[in-house]
Amino acid sequence: MQQTDTPERFRRRAIQPEEAQQAILDHIRVLGAETVSLHEAWDRHLAEALIAPHPFPPFRRSGMDGYAVRTADLEHARPDGQAELAVLENLPGGTEPKHPIGPGQASRIMTGGMVPEGADAVVMLEMTSPGEREGRAYVEIGKSVPRGANISEIGSEIREGEKLLPAGQRIGAGESAVLASCGCARVAVSRRPLVAILSTGSELLEVDEPLAPAKIRNSNSPMLAALVREFGAEPMLLGKVPDEAEAAGKLVRGTLAECDLLLTTGGVSVGDYDVMVDILAQPDVKLLFNKIAMRPGSPTSAALFGDKLVLALSGNPGACFVGFHLFAVPALRRMLGMERPLHPSFTACLGEDFPKVNAYRRYIRASAEIRDGQVWVTPTGDDKSSLMTTIVGADCLIEIPPLKEGLKRGHPVKAWKISR
Amino acid sequence: MQQTDTPERFRRRAIQPEEAQQAILDHIRVLGAETVSLHEAWDRHLAEALIAPHPFPPFRRSGMDGYAVRTADLEHARPDGQAELAVLENLPGGTEPKHPIGPGQASRIMTGGMVPEGADAVVMLEMTSPGEREGRAYVEIGKSVPRGANISEIGSEIREGEKLLPAGQRIGAGESAVLASCGCARVAVSRRPLVAILSTGSELLEVDEPLAPAKIRNSNSPMLAALVREFGAEPMLLGKVPDEAEAAGKLVRGTLAECDLLLTTGGVSVGDYDVMVDILAQPDVKLLFNKIAMRPGSPTSAALFGDKLVLALSGNPGACFVGFHLFAVPALRRMLGMERPLHPSFTACLGEDFPKVNAYRRYIRASAEIRDGQVWVTPTGDDKSSLMTTIVGADCLIEIPPLKEGLKRGHPVKAWKISR
Repeated sequence: MQQTDTPERFRRRAIQPEEAQQAILDHIRVLGAETVSLHEAWDRHLAEALIAPHPFPPFRRSGMDGYAVRTADLEHARPDGQAELAVLENLPGGTEPKHPIGPGQASRIMTGGMVPEGADAVVMLEMTSPGEREGRAYVEIGKSVPRGANISEIGSEIREGEKLLPAGQRIGAGESAVLASCGCARVAVSRRPLVAILSTGSELLEVDEPLAPAKIRNSNSPMLAALVREFGAEPMLLGKVPDEAEAAGKLVRGTLAECDLLLTTGGVSVGDYDVMVDILAQPDVKLLFNKIAMRPGSPTSAALFGDKLVLALSGNPGACFVGFHLFAVPALRRMLGMERPLHPSFTACLGEDFPKVNAYRRYIRASAEIRDGQVWVTPTGDDKSSLMTTIVGADCLIEIPPLKEGLKRGHPVKAWKISR
Repeated sequence: MQQTDTPERFRRRAIQPEEAQQAILDHIRVLGAETVSLHEAWDRHLAEALIAPHPFPPFRRSGMDGYAVRTADLEHARPDGQAELAVLENLPGGTEPKHPIGPGQASRIMTGGMVPEGADAVVMLEMTSPGEREGRAYVEIGKSVPRGANISEIGSEIREGEKLLPAGQRIGAGESAVLASCGCARVAVSRRPLVAILSTGSELLEVDEPLAPAKIRNSNSPMLAALVREFGAEPMLLGKVPDEAEAAGKLVRGTLAECDLLLTTGGVSVGDYDVMVDILAQPDVKLLFNKIAMRPGSPTSAALFGDKLVLALSGNPGACFVGFHLFAVPALRRMLGMERPLHPSFTACLGEDFPKVNAYRRYIRASAEIRDGQVWVTPTGDDKSSLMTTIVGADCLIEIPPLKEGLKRGHPVKAWKISR
């Protein structure tokens, strides 16, 4: 029974979660860029802001099927209220007009068509009656329209030189459309962070191994791999190692050169076999913290091996999940160049009584629901529920401050939205 | 000027958006399943419900580092209040106990360790003082703990046979952890819907072409490809075709055998060059609808070519985006076996005045924000803003009913959450 280092292990200095986040962010830099096709750029992050290379629309564009006219002609209509205009040409989308519109003239134009010189409005098709006389096309229009009607002016949607998208922005549907409009067939995106994932624990089986006494399957690695991918990074699965500091330490050090961040689970507590504690205590390692004034996950630790960050999360699946969101997400977002590294927070009503007394700040996996315009956040399971199954369906973390008494249902609480 | 079919085009029967959604859902079936590794299963959808194959934890598990004890021993402590127990063995995680705990005995146990027979509680390490006398390990414990303390009973998190995840559920982080725990190294997931995307319009340039008079770049195809991927399907990009019904029709028909759904953009309106109108009017095509009582996107059309659905969206990027969310998303979700094909709706406060009078139901791209527990939804751009740039940042659609008067800021409105 080796208890010699126990006093040291208990003597950790607890810091606040915000200090821990800052300590991590202080050591993370934006990763470099790479250029990919627009199609490959989906779900990546812009490496630089998108500045409009030209106005949009790039020409005066019709917003309707109808006739391009001079509004002055409609104001001087015939006694029967109808203006009759000679039709010069037909302007489907994509066709450059050959003729400017002079007095008494019009051109048929389709939605998206280029409005000819001289025209100052488009009258919608449903308000017109076309005809032909002596081989010449005309159109009768019975109603005036305001100047500029149904015309999108050059640059009315996007001005040339306008900042359209900030650096770091995730490329979703709208961003893809804007990039395409600007002619960005190739896009500079942040390199995907490569995140190594190592689970420690002699109790762990591979997912495909049969159960055995005292053993459970490694669920943290697949969970972290999913989270890493959700947040725009690439997982590098190192599997599991038993609680043997030397072997685990070798694997950690051997991997750091290849990855941008190393996540470990387990081995951070005060037990005799907590391997990460030993690995992070080595003399060339710069420990950033090894105790956080929070539940779950108080022994969550972080350290620098040279310039590489190792974030050592709890082996408890719930604490591992919370630790990822609080401490790994800011690191990944900073690497991807995103403007705000932290999850956004909001205020909501607590969906059920929280009777526990809390000596520490607590983060509770919860789901948010809107009822009559009001946001309610409800823990995804009670204390008897699985630590793992409560991760399913969790879309926020309720932050409960240290409390002398519990909280009643309906009490306003702070919560963190944990979706990407 | 060919206007012969104009009257027919104007004589469309408008249906309500709900009817259009139902007409689509009536013709969509769940796609088949395929089996992939757990790692590949991320972001896919379960083809069948997950039933727990065994209880979890599968053994009595310690929730703490400490000593496994019989609580009866602690109640009969020595006069100094301390109970002294003989320590039998050391139980790190993953080790099967060799010795049951008898009266006056304890075993050292680590978090996650298997609790030996006879023990009915685990006392945390911090409450104990270990020692050795005559070569035999003992531990002093000064405080009683309740029966069951720090022990997770077999099945306390998951009962054997419990339904853990429903068919159709997207596999995210929590689902990955639960699947791993259950030993699902390979997972049956719904086949990804293959969605062909075709943009029509003679005004369209490829993204890498330089601007030319009357031309704009094809932004709808990249936007739809992004949306298709966001919603768990695979895009098949057919590029763009000019407004020529014969060529476009051939491409549509030639593609249908290879895809599960075909999305087109443009060509659905009342203009002379609206190719999709002609293609959907062919005698062997079963038109489901070609007018919806809504804005934007009223000419959105759907038709069956045999058993394959063609959804013809507007060429206007904003209307195309709205149409995808209202009509393509339910189709994709049904194909993926999801329980609820429609986006969820909620009530929120309108974030700014909406002065327009509406003859039709209107769907407005908007972003939701929580302020003091209340949800506010604000259009992502005013009428002067780009139809395309307002897609960026839109995370919901405000539904405005037909109105004789505008709505004031703060008015309660219905909105649809449009994230996956």
